[in-house]
Amino acid sequence: MDLSHELAIGVDIGGTNTKWGLVNHRGEIVRKGELRTDAHEDVNDFIQALYDTLQPIIDEVGDGKVIKGMGIGAPNGNFYKGTIEYAPNLHWRGIIPMTKLMTDKFGFPCLLTNDANAAAVGEMMYGAARGMKDFIMITLGTGVGSGIVANGQLILGHDGFAGELGHTCIRPGGRLHWGTGLRGSLETYCSATGIVLTAKELLEQSSESSALRGIDDETLDSKKVFELAQQGDAIALETYRFTGQVLGEALANFVMFSSPEAIILFGGVIKAGDLLMNPTREHMEANLLPIFRDKVKLVFSELKEADAAILGASALVWEIKE
Amino acid sequence: MDLSHELAIGVDIGGTNTKWGLVNHRGEIVRKGELRTDAHEDVNDFIQALYDTLQPIIDEVGDGKVIKGMGIGAPNGNFYKGTIEYAPNLHWRGIIPMTKLMTDKFGFPCLLTNDANAAAVGEMMYGAARGMKDFIMITLGTGVGSGIVANGQLILGHDGFAGELGHTCIRPGGRLHWGTGLRGSLETYCSATGIVLTAKELLEQSSESSALRGIDDETLDSKKVFELAQQGDAIALETYRFTGQVLGEALANFVMFSSPEAIILFGGVIKAGDLLMNPTREHMEANLLPIFRDKVKLVFSELKEADAAILGASALVWEIKE
Repeated sequence: MDLSHELAIGVDIGGTNTKWGLVNHRGEIVRKGELRTDAHEDVNDFIQALYDTLQPIIDEVGDGKVIKGMGIGAPNGNFYKGTIEYAPNLHWRGIIPMTKLMTDKFGFPCLLTNDANAAAVGEMMYGAARGMKDFIMITLGTGVGSGIVANGQLILGHDGFAGELGHTCIRPGGRLHWGTGLRGSLETYCSATGIVLTAKELLEQSSESSALRGIDDETLDSKKVFELAQQGDAIALETYRFTGQVLGEALANFVMFSSPEAIILFGGVIKAGDLLMNPTREHMEANLLPIFRDKVKLVFSELKEADAAILGASALVWEIKE
Repeated sequence: MDLSHELAIGVDIGGTNTKWGLVNHRGEIVRKGELRTDAHEDVNDFIQALYDTLQPIIDEVGDGKVIKGMGIGAPNGNFYKGTIEYAPNLHWRGIIPMTKLMTDKFGFPCLLTNDANAAAVGEMMYGAARGMKDFIMITLGTGVGSGIVANGQLILGHDGFAGELGHTCIRPGGRLHWGTGLRGSLETYCSATGIVLTAKELLEQSSESSALRGIDDETLDSKKVFELAQQGDAIALETYRFTGQVLGEALANFVMFSSPEAIILFGGVIKAGDLLMNPTREHMEANLLPIFRDKVKLVFSELKEADAAILGASALVWEIKE
């Protein structure tokens, strides 16, 4: 069979939007689109909507092309069971047997993993981690996710839920997480949400003038803090410096766990560039044992954010045995 | 070839003593012994002393037995390179090409890994982790070491130095490490050394009467603190409760990294039994995301401490390809 004629469908389910793409063996997205996740309270309605969107396209490209299957990245996705379990930012409660529902609807095999793992696979096959056997991908978005690769394999853990580095505690007794009830997790400091909380705390603790003071709660987001930091606003600058410090301290711990060749940062927050990267690198290096220093490549993702998870999810499909 | 007639030599190099054993395929130690590590300033003298001890025994059992090779566990041991690199508690400075030196002397193949990894392999083949593909072994002795297994393989990292969990920071800005200069590492709190430091801090902070106050610095060790805790001494009890708290918080972070089926605790400090285990379990569970709770087996090693590293080191030998 000429593999160049096979296509895999990659689906990235997020809390607000679901992105999909048809991907060939070279990692080229030949068709893509998206639909609202949060518009569908019932998962069956969501799958029907995805079907209504995808099936005409599948029929269209079906002329000479074979759809090999579907790979799905989703929050709290479990590779072993094909389930989405208790995802806090999805409407669908409890345990959703997603791959079974999808296969019943579409008729081809489906595999699923969590969204950060999917992005890590995308990075390994098509991005900054090409050729690497040991790396960690950290996604810094609304939340903080992670995908860990060691010995060339995703670390899934005995139950499929490994790699929740956003929920590791980096400040014992620290900031309360809005969803988990745990204190001091990486996500409470280094997500977009955490960055805004840091800016607000700094404003309260200081009487220094700052353009941040004029912004109402509705408008204040991590992007706004970044823009003001670029303009030299001292509180905004300190917000990113502190974010990088906490992230760097956390990364040092991760390095001493799996000694990766690289850590790849991904997601909306990395738009801050050197404002984030410089303090992150400084504090990571300062907290490492000497044998780990000046070795780990700390880099930003090379993939378009919208594409990485689709590519990674689709890459799962090529592993399906005939 | 009748494999039952093959033997592997396992060598566990510690800062003070080196233990060795001849092990058969069933994991039975058929001969064992030890020699001083710290009596040999030069590594070549050490190897000569080991040779003088082992060679007569090798000749003796050689009658019908084949020595397949030697496996070595050593602090800062690097599996990929066969080197011991900058081990702080050994006399031998710099990078020691240990497997090369041993093979040159003994004439059979040698493999090496760090001592905690060797113990983890021993636990996987002969101990509490039999049949497990995902577990973490934590050694609580003079220092804190770790061996991590995921997908059935040791996590070695890209450079062979993965699994330094004793040096991860669990209290940012916390206790200064006597050797690394880093602050707040797990080892500064949960090693035997750290336990004594905790007891001393508690004595200073409190005016409560305690039998610990009568003990001079030379005599005070973690075993003594344990004995007094058993007798109901409040400061000694609080020392172990606090040690378990810090350990439990650290274990929660490790679980959210690799989601192991079990965490196996090993080493002299575990003699404290429930005094350590109860607070450790409580604080581990309290710091986990719900999807990880009540799942991880937290257990003490089933292997004799003196044997685990010898067995694990010898097990490396069975992997040598002819």
